[in-house]
Amino acid sequence: MAAFDLLISLQIIGIAAFAVSGALVAGERQMDWFGVMLLGIIVAVGGGTLRDLLLAVPVFWTQASWYVVMAALCALATIPFAGWANRVRRPVAIADAFGLAVFVALGTRKALEAGTSGVVAVIMGVVTGIVGGIIRDVLANRTPIILRKEVYALAALCGATLFVFAERVGMQADYALWLSVAVTLTIRILAIHFNWSVPTLRVEPGDQE
Amino acid sequence: MAAFDLLISLQIIGIAAFAVSGALVAGERQMDWFGVMLLGIIVAVGGGTLRDLLLAVPVFWTQASWYVVMAALCALATIPFAGWANRVRRPVAIADAFGLAVFVALGTRKALEAGTSGVVAVIMGVVTGIVGGIIRDVLANRTPIILRKEVYALAALCGATLFVFAERVGMQADYALWLSVAVTLTIRILAIHFNWSVPTLRVEPGDQE
Amino acid sequence: MAAFDLLISLQIIGIAAFAVSGALVAGERQMDWFGVMLLGIIVAVGGGTLRDLLLAVPVFWTQASWYVVMAALCALATIPFAGWANRVRRPVAIADAFGLAVFVALGTRKALEAGTSGVVAVIMGVVTGIVGGIIRDVLANRTPIILRKEVYALAALCGATLFVFAERVGMQADYALWLSVAVTLTIRILAIHFNWSVPTLRVEPGDQE
Repeated sequence: MAAFDLLISLQIIGIAAFAVSGALVAGERQMDWFGVMLLGIIVAVGGGTLRDLLLAVPVFWTQASWYVVMAALCALATIPFAGWANRVRRPVAIADAFGLAVFVALGTRKALEAGTSGVVAVIMGVVTGIVGGIIRDVLANRTPIILRKEVYALAALCGATLFVFAERVGMQADYALWLSVAVTLTIRILAIHFNWSVPTLRVEPGDQE
Repeated sequence: MAAFDLLISLQIIGIAAFAVSGALVAGERQMDWFGVMLLGIIVAVGGGTLRDLLLAVPVFWTQASWYVVMAALCALATIPFAGWANRVRRPVAIADAFGLAVFVALGTRKALEAGTSGVVAVIMGVVTGIVGGIIRDVLANRTPIILRKEVYALAALCGATLFVFAERVGMQADYALWLSVAVTLTIRILAIHFNWSVPTLRVEPGDQE
Repeated sequence: MAAFDLLISLQIIGIAAFAVSGALVAGERQMDWFGVMLLGIIVAVGGGTLRDLLLAVPVFWTQASWYVVMAALCALATIPFAGWANRVRRPVAIADAFGLAVFVALGTRKALEAGTSGVVAVIMGVVTGIVGGIIRDVLANRTPIILRKEVYALAALCGATLFVFAERVGMQADYALWLSVAVTLTIRILAIHFNWSVPTLRVEPGDQE
């Protein structure tokens, strides 16, 4: 029960952090308050929505709309504090790391419960964690930050892979979940702290453009 | 029967207006004729498509492909008149308002008929109305206009909310539908006429970019 | 059996070429290795994924994850050869044409097998062929090249239409498939060789922006 409560608390922290990150990016693009609300919602539920569509299971928030309402409220609540944006980026990034960790683990578990293979479960975990942020950046008309630098998607990939591996070697599902959360969170926090990044690829633009 | 015919007429006006708006944006980006056709189709059917995927019901145009064919023809028919683009923007915006109003109401109704909660039905109404225009702007590589200014999504939100409210207090579904259409349309037309806009949020860009 | 093997070979060539094209565009945007992998995967499986969602059939790679793994490996294998990018563009474009031809034909066939109308089957064939490349360009923050120039989507449209037509006039499904592949491939190769393009539309930007 305590573990369950902790899971819910982490989910709430994650939804709030994701929604706030959407609201801040909306503000950087001078969107109106509706755009702020929508971007907050999309970051918070976008990844889980695509995961559920791909798994052909009911989209989670169509049966529990408090996710959407809460994301909308968190995004709107950001508006009066927008002047503080640059001072809250670091705490928001930390809260976002908690969200990422728990969303990846829950996404992986949902895929395994739906009977997918291990590879597909890992993909679904990563999709759950990163797709919201990718759509956010596409709507803000910039190349998704997650694809350009920072160890973000890689942290998700490690956490999801470890979950599947732990389950396959017989670890109890609950322990595997928390192990996955801990691994994603640790990698992500260390990456924020030490400014880790994945090497980039440079290709000369062709004549196509 | 008369009400039914009016609904079909409004839908046809809406599809035509949405398709033409897609074609004009394609032309602003100097897309080729295929891009013009595709953008027209996407604006006209994009919102309803996402709604149906989220509701896990068959995508409407896979069972009634005349929607797609009509949108394609309207988009292509825009090509010879492209020189008039700036003179037709106002009438197209008015026609678009009719389309928005009827799509939002029909989207909300479809969600309620699929058994969703009121909150989800409102979301589905808004999704039906605005997602086509959002994908249009993403494909044209610009921040969606719907998220930046103009009372557009907000009109959709009011119309969808009123539909659900009217149904909940016991109004007959047909009346609720027309009330919703009237509200969305009125707000949108007034917003065009008086140049209403929703307040915007401004956030200093962080060091992420 | 020989025809079957040829089909598999063409699919593998197509996946590889699509994944490499995603990796090259990721490199042009200086994405990190994870972004390179993700863009490769999305180009290779994006079109088929949307087709399956629209048809409400299980998404193909959730039941055969080697597609995703192979696309990821092909994208990553591009990294050490990035310096050669401009020399390999032509061969990659040719391989891409094979991929386009076979994906369009298989997409059309899958739709017909799912019981759709001819128009819908043509749309699904085109979606299968071009949507991966469109998402690639959206994530790279540019107007999709497929919508701006080159006879690419048009080749897909011809191949898919001919498939449906051939089936409707009673041609055996296997022959229809190969006819469709041949037509798409021929048009696309000729378009690359002779630099064909579809006429573009030019519209003066409105005051919306």
